[in-house]
Amino acid sequence: MGSPVCMEKESISAWFKKLQEELCENLEQLDGSGKFRRDPWPRKGGGGGITRVLEEGNIIEKGGVNFSEVFGKTNSSLVNDLNTSESDFYATGISVVLHPISPMIPIIHMNTRYFEMGSGESWFGGGIDLTPHYVLPEDAVYFHKALKNVCDKFDPDFYPAFKKEADDYFFIRHRNETRGIGGIFFDRLSDPDDKKMKELFEFTKAVGSFFFPVYRDLVSRNKTRPYGNRERQWQGLRRGRYVEFNLVWDKGTKFGLETEGRTESILMSLPNSACWIYDHQTDPHSNEHNTLKWLKKGVDWINLK
Amino acid sequence: MGSPVCMEKESISAWFKKLQEELCENLEQLDGSGKFRRDPWPRKGGGGGITRVLEEGNIIEKGGVNFSEVFGKTNSSLVNDLNTSESDFYATGISVVLHPISPMIPIIHMNTRYFEMGSGESWFGGGIDLTPHYVLPEDAVYFHKALKNVCDKFDPDFYPAFKKEADDYFFIRHRNETRGIGGIFFDRLSDPDDKKMKELFEFTKAVGSFFFPVYRDLVSRNKTRPYGNRERQWQGLRRGRYVEFNLVWDKGTKFGLETEGRTESILMSLPNSACWIYDHQTDPHSNEHNTLKWLKKGVDWINLK
Repeated sequence: MGSPVCMEKESISAWFKKLQEELCENLEQLDGSGKFRRDPWPRKGGGGGITRVLEEGNIIEKGGVNFSEVFGKTNSSLVNDLNTSESDFYATGISVVLHPISPMIPIIHMNTRYFEMGSGESWFGGGIDLTPHYVLPEDAVYFHKALKNVCDKFDPDFYPAFKKEADDYFFIRHRNETRGIGGIFFDRLSDPDDKKMKELFEFTKAVGSFFFPVYRDLVSRNKTRPYGNRERQWQGLRRGRYVEFNLVWDKGTKFGLETEGRTESILMSLPNSACWIYDHQTDPHSNEHNTLKWLKKGVDWINLK
Repeated sequence: MGSPVCMEKESISAWFKKLQEELCENLEQLDGSGKFRRDPWPRKGGGGGITRVLEEGNIIEKGGVNFSEVFGKTNSSLVNDLNTSESDFYATGISVVLHPISPMIPIIHMNTRYFEMGSGESWFGGGIDLTPHYVLPEDAVYFHKALKNVCDKFDPDFYPAFKKEADDYFFIRHRNETRGIGGIFFDRLSDPDDKKMKELFEFTKAVGSFFFPVYRDLVSRNKTRPYGNRERQWQGLRRGRYVEFNLVWDKGTKFGLETEGRTESILMSLPNSACWIYDHQTDPHSNEHNTLKWLKKGVDWINLK
């Protein structure tokens, strides 16, 4: 393409693909019972992907790990979405969403991706965020400190900037509620300097590698906590909010559905089941009520008193 | 406002409000157990509404009957949505969605509305559509013939035109599936002639009045049909599609959520629960499989062989 891009996109994509395999193996081991099915799919126009989904496991009720590598000519939606001009494009990435059976274990999402345009632009994007059905401040602090650790190894500005972006992105505007306790979100991460661009790839890899050990810890911290019908019902309502965010506000989902992406792969992010009760109210002093108090932008988890 | 509008908007709104009361009374009687709660709400900027919701009835699992009468200055979203210029606006309407407990009874939706702009434009809009979890052709034919009957009393062109609009509107693009067996949909129905405009109000009223007796018939035709876990699971999946349509494609829902409408009133249309199974497949020759075959645009229910 004669572009100044010097990263090898094939090696980036190969890394995402390898991460998918590793994650599925690790998650199967963690779950102890469920197995990921494997659906490769081609994309009209160029490229394709591999969708892997585990349903009705021992710990995971529904989980998806998607890999894709797609390329071709940008259409008008893509031009609009990426705020770019018409050209060739190449995009590769991995995205993960896990819905656990236990309402005491959080939902987790992670996504990392790489874009390259015929014009020569290229960038990394990604994010990871945690959606506990019941917010435990100590878990949230653990998660954010671990994330800050990863970010700080690359740039001390990353965590504060990307934490704020996550607060803004994973926000359910019509509920005036964050989806969960946030995490990090970054997009259009790029550098004209080749060496620095390679560092950004290392950062993206570090985010990808961060995912499993942290979720394993969160599962182990919470998997023996008891729950009953009350907690399962609350989980249903929180899953309802997850559905609302993904279908109404998530840019990737909207973009995918509007541009004839592979629907089943896009909507693997939805839970097995979700509930809606009209104007549901929580009892003051209940765990449900306390959870809602944490679903705000701008909570400083690192310095939580 | 010095506009050429000669319909009295207050009397139109009063009619919708009265319809809301009548529908709730009739539906409570039909249900035999559930009661509609009543939530009046004010709107910042002008007007407000009354939301009525019944949950956990004998026949209806979740049903909402919304009335609203709102007015003020158009904001940029409304200007965009209505394809109009900035001015005063007035809008009143009623909308109904019923999710029955039994998967053998269809979901139904009805909405009628009246708009008036400071510029002098005014119009009626509305629609009614049926979403059976299991399509019975004889019920679909009954429903469409009854609708055609109502339409034909006003204009023989109405039914074919509005039936097509419903097929196009109640379409889940990312599934290449209609939401159900359609019905009618109309918008911007208007006439410069006063007398004809009054006729259009009569037509709108006829659609509103059509709703209850037809749904009562559909309930009575299906309420004793047996079902088990298999049918309840399929209902969960079909409800998932209903959620997808409403959150991704329904213009009223999108518009309401993006312009800070009253979220609980807008989302009363969502079912009590919904399910998603990755890449769910139906057995050929099963009732579920047969249902999917009917979820296409352009089925000629009136002349079905």
